Amino acid sequence: MKIQKEVLIGVVCSAVMLTMGILIGHFGIKDDSSTPDWVRDVARDVDESLIEKFLSEVDNMQIQENLRVLTKVPHMATTAGDEETVQYMLKRWQDAETGLDQAWREEYLVYLSFPDPKNPNKVSVVSPSNAELYTAREKEKPYGPEQQDPEVVQPYAAYAPSGHPRGKLVYANQGKPSDYQLLNKTLDLRGTIAITRYGGAGRAAKAINAAPYGVIGVLVYTDPLDINDGLMSDDNETYPHSWYLPPSGVERGAFATNYGDMLTPYLPCPNLQQLFNDCFLHFICTLLGGAAAPDAWRGGFNCSYNFGGPGFRPTSTFNNSDVKLDIYNREEKRNSSNVMGIIRGSIEPDRYVIYGNHRDSWVHGAIDPSSGTSVMLEVTRVLGRMVKQGRWRPRRSIIFGSWGAEEFGLIGSAEYTEQYFTKLSERTVAYINVDIAVFANATLRASAIPSTHGVYRMGFLTGAGSDYAAFIHYLGITSMDIAYTYDRTKTNARIYPAYHTAYDTFDYCSKFIDPGFTSHQAVARTAGNVLIRLADSLVLPLNSSDYAESLESYLDKALELYQDQLTAKKISMEPLKRAVAKFRSAATDLEQLIRNSDLKNETPLKIRRINDQLMLLDRAFLDPLAFPDKHGFRHVIWASSGAGQPTFPGLADAFFTAMSSGLASDWEKVHYHLSVLSQAIEGAAHTLAEVI
Amino acid sequence: MKIQKEVLIGVVCSAVMLTMGILIGHFGIKDDSSTPDWVRDVARDVDESLIEKFLSEVDNMQIQENLRVLTKVPHMATTAGDEETVQYMLKRWQDAETGLDQAWREEYLVYLSFPDPKNPNKVSVVSPSNAELYTAREKEKPYGPEQQDPEVVQPYAAYAPSGHPRGKLVYANQGKPSDYQLLNKTLDLRGTIAITRYGGAGRAAKAINAAPYGVIGVLVYTDPLDINDGLMSDDNETYPHSWYLPPSGVERGAFATNYGDMLTPYLPCPNLQQLFNDCFLHFICTLLGGAAAPDAWRGGFNCSYNFGGPGFRPTSTFNNSDVKLDIYNREEKRNSSNVMGIIRGSIEPDRYVIYGNHRDSWVHGAIDPSSGTSVMLEVTRVLGRMVKQGRWRPRRSIIFGSWGAEEFGLIGSAEYTEQYFTKLSERTVAYINVDIAVFANATLRASAIPSTHGVYRMGFLTGAGSDYAAFIHYLGITSMDIAYTYDRTKTNARIYPAYHTAYDTFDYCSKFIDPGFTSHQAVARTAGNVLIRLADSLVLPLNSSDYAESLESYLDKALELYQDQLTAKKISMEPLKRAVAKFRSAATDLEQLIRNSDLKNETPLKIRRINDQLMLLDRAFLDPLAFPDKHGFRHVIWASSGAGQPTFPGLADAFFTAMSSGLASDWEKVHYHLSVLSQAIEGAAHTLAEVI
Repeated sequence: MKIQKEVLIGVVCSAVMLTMGILIGHFGIKDDSSTPDWVRDVARDVDESLIEKFLSEVDNMQIQENLRVLTKVPHMATTAGDEETVQYMLKRWQDAETGLDQAWREEYLVYLSFPDPKNPNKVSVVSPSNAELYTAREKEKPYGPEQQDPEVVQPYAAYAPSGHPRGKLVYANQGKPSDYQLLNKTLDLRGTIAITRYGGAGRAAKAINAAPYGVIGVLVYTDPLDINDGLMSDDNETYPHSWYLPPSGVERGAFATNYGDMLTPYLPCPNLQQLFNDCFLHFICTLLGGAAAPDAWRGGFNCSYNFGGPGFRPTSTFNNSDVKLDIYNREEKRNSSNVMGIIRGSIEPDRYVIYGNHRDSWVHGAIDPSSGTSVMLEVTRVLGRMVKQGRWRPRRSIIFGSWGAEEFGLIGSAEYTEQYFTKLSERTVAYINVDIAVFANATLRASAIPSTHGVYRMGFLTGAGSDYAAFIHYLGITSMDIAYTYDRTKTNARIYPAYHTAYDTFDYCSKFIDPGFTSHQAVARTAGNVLIRLADSLVLPLNSSDYAESLESYLDKALELYQDQLTAKKISMEPLKRAVAKFRSAATDLEQLIRNSDLKNETPLKIRRINDQLMLLDRAFLDPLAFPDKHGFRHVIWASSGAGQPTFPGLADAFFTAMSSGLASDWEKVHYHLSVLSQAIEGAAHTLAEVI
Repeated sequence: MKIQKEVLIGVVCSAVMLTMGILIGHFGIKDDSSTPDWVRDVARDVDESLIEKFLSEVDNMQIQENLRVLTKVPHMATTAGDEETVQYMLKRWQDAETGLDQAWREEYLVYLSFPDPKNPNKVSVVSPSNAELYTAREKEKPYGPEQQDPEVVQPYAAYAPSGHPRGKLVYANQGKPSDYQLLNKTLDLRGTIAITRYGGAGRAAKAINAAPYGVIGVLVYTDPLDINDGLMSDDNETYPHSWYLPPSGVERGAFATNYGDMLTPYLPCPNLQQLFNDCFLHFICTLLGGAAAPDAWRGGFNCSYNFGGPGFRPTSTFNNSDVKLDIYNREEKRNSSNVMGIIRGSIEPDRYVIYGNHRDSWVHGAIDPSSGTSVMLEVTRVLGRMVKQGRWRPRRSIIFGSWGAEEFGLIGSAEYTEQYFTKLSERTVAYINVDIAVFANATLRASAIPSTHGVYRMGFLTGAGSDYAAFIHYLGITSMDIAYTYDRTKTNARIYPAYHTAYDTFDYCSKFIDPGFTSHQAVARTAGNVLIRLADSLVLPLNSSDYAESLESYLDKALELYQDQLTAKKISMEPLKRAVAKFRSAATDLEQLIRNSDLKNETPLKIRRINDQLMLLDRAFLDPLAFPDKHGFRHVIWASSGAGQPTFPGLADAFFTAMSSGLASDWEKVHYHLSVLSQAIEGAAHTLAEVI
């Protein structure tokens, strides 16, 4: 027994010792090669529960409140109202509980254009004896206190040169080249003032297109057909009774052909001024001479939209009278601010996801741009709180930008990309733009470069309609633009009717665009969701196969449209075909590599390698010499194009020019651009292929 | 006792159990979080013992043997001799025991220019009655079998247009603008044929400078003063008695103003031909009319280098005769090959160190370029063997390039950088060029972009003298060029005397340039050492403080030279000063960060971040619009400049132009370039600063 007891004690001791030993051996002795903490950190992927949390915390009432504050006063670029929004953004982003890591302002001296408050621009009818027979309204009709704010800027065309052109009035439909061409067949347009309706051609194009015909002034108005689904009475049809534009509403805008700051105005051609609808009704339907216009030229008024003239009917009181424009615009250099805010990345701080919107408006800008700014502020409130509470820090850095002076030509964002060109080119994963967050509350619309199509199904992002322009076209950064938009079975409005007018107010938005702000909430959730995935995913959620598909569809269209003619000119499309095929093959290989890799156990440098391939894909499509005539456009796939074909823009434009002129030198340019294009696509394929 | 024994057994058992436990605990139980192998791998720094090994294995006799093989026959670009060298490179780089991971050729169809073998170019003296009084020698005098090889190309000026200009001869010194200007004061140069000596102005410049004066033909010869330290007799002074050029030697060359492939020749101006020294002696000293030339115009012949004329002395047999050039050059598109070889990187395969040299020569090209190719082959032999034996694999990938058609304008390397533009821009750490490895065996010379100055003390790398041009000027890749060079107390030769002649042979090199090939060995060791450090260092051995120092010295010079005049023109240099100061501060911060980091224990992504900042530094200095008139030059700090001042090249050139013309538009250009420059330097500072 005694022995047994001792044996027992021995066994117990041994067992205790064994256990102790195991514990000591396992926990007490640290290898030199013990795993550093960062090994786990660098392999961490996006946390779906955090996204759930984010989605649930996005609050529609907060967005409504943001919008109320942002739209208290008109906040045109560089005005006192603009400065108020700068201060508000800073206050929000520097908030101790819901702010970002850091926020600051960056100022740029930029070239803007304003009407002279002491000498308002004027449109009048002047008799042969110089009597002023009629003067168009100078302000929009007030329906509430917002329109009566003295800071509401007179409707004007920024950068339209000052001057006093006087001439016979003529209706020129949408001011497209074909419109002036048609008029010019029967009419000498020299010395005339053209009146055009919004749509069909860009604002600046209406004047540029007129110049060759000797037109000396251009007026632009908004036709009820194009914006109001034909409605026009403010007794019961238009705002404040509905979302439709009241008759006196005027869409302001900048008449710039390029984006970015202009050291010189780009408009040497006719003077420009926007015109009120109600003047137009009077002019065209009652007074203007000439015969009935072709059907396609007619808008929403119940009259024949007279064609020809020029000038007023002999039977009217304005017989023999001219229209006179008095433009007193002044160009000024002013300080415009971007407000910047950041959340530092934990693992890859040198990779940036940028989210931005402009802050400046024409008047109160409730929809454009404050709906987007309200959404951005809600995204930063929810994310900022997570960061401040230590619940989250993104893998990559997030940069928020509240751009200045967008309405004058995307100036703030363009200055930003110019100032930080190299740094942003090297490090930016993607740019998310939410400008007008809710055009209408019917359905989500996301437009993007194909590499992000995997995130959501969406349309292509082309043109230069908002601040994404410099990011995609100048820096080659994958970009997307997110908004809620129309149900096209219910309206044909060119854009939401109060766009760029004094009626784009909090009242308008909360009553007619998005009562309850749930569409705003949906946009905030979508944008935030994409933002978190871009910032936190181990492998970037960017896709090269969708890009290949887009290139193939562009190629098919190009072959269909151009191959016969090009073959006849001995210009081969084979290099382009080969380049697209190479791109497809490299994209397939890369996606296979991603699928077949055990990414969580790979070295972080291998994942970084793949991410760099995805991040830099759009950079490969840049060629600074591809579009010598288009300032700021260097992306050979997504540059804007006048040809209106769903294919490679430079090729389409060059082909159109060569077909029109028939010049050998223009066919040379087609050939040259085809080389540029093939080379860029092949270069992009090289970046996707096995790295060595 | 019994109990004691049992206690003893118990203690022993316990001890055994404890030990077992410790062993089990330590080795038997594996954490899920056991350290992956790659954690150690990614933190590994360059292995100094491996560099020692490399240095000891570099063999001078192997280099000599490489050179013997490479120079067996003339190997001008795209000729059969060139193809032999392609095959040899491939054989070496695909060797199972000493080759690289992979090697292949890449072909480009390029635009070259050759004399017509059936109609050799000719320089003759023609009497007024069209009698041919004299014809210059068409081939260099043979001293050995090499010069008698039928594949020795007739001395010619590639890309000189065909034609038959005929006119009075006039001596124009070095063909600088000032030379023609001086002649033009007393002489009507229209219709003349100018004879110029090498040096002072580039080959093409001698013709371009002549064009405005109506000169219709330009001859170029090598003066004994400029290349032979005055010696000129082949009885005992020149090769084969020494390294000096025999009297009949002619420096071939391409008359191109830009580098890269030319789809059209860039020389609409006078026809060009090189001329033999011995003809020159006869022409200038014995026959040419006019008075004695200014001292600065005189070369090494013991005569007065007659100034003026034009034409021959009335007393000479050539009285009233013309000089006639018959140029039958033919431009052709030919296939030129780069031979590429790679060693794949283990940790960061998507980071490239590129090492290259051209393969084509004018004749046998023992020094230019085969000395460099022999060195490269020895570097790849030693490294290749280490790789094949499993002794080594670099952290980063190494790419070797044997470029084609350099002599015609750096064509092969330029094509390569164009084809892989984006990929190379994004991933290349540095480019090492070893063209002429040994000009003379006196001392090592390394020229480089300042970021690599930390590696060795060296001079700036400017201009476009070899294949580094496209890498640094077009892609903004940190580059260096390494060679052994002259003792300037012993020779004033412009360049080694046999340069571009039929005397640049294995015999010449092994007897007079580097007997024993120990200077070649030193270059191979240096280049390989730099290569391994760039490929293997944990933190790239690139330095931003040295760059700051260079910018400051350029700034000081610019302030000294231009500030007064610019202030008078109301052009401020403050933005430039601020930009340089910002760069210095960012560089200091970055180096402090590197010094203060415990790099071996940092996450590999932090090291990658710093390395990306260092690697991409030179990219920030690129501006594709900075030099609209200079094809292929985009680096605002190192572009070539005509002003010859140690300061910012674009600023120096713009200032020079504005001072000469006095035009307001030229001062505008100075202002514009100053903005471009300040913006680029500030952009570079942003890339060095804290990443977010």
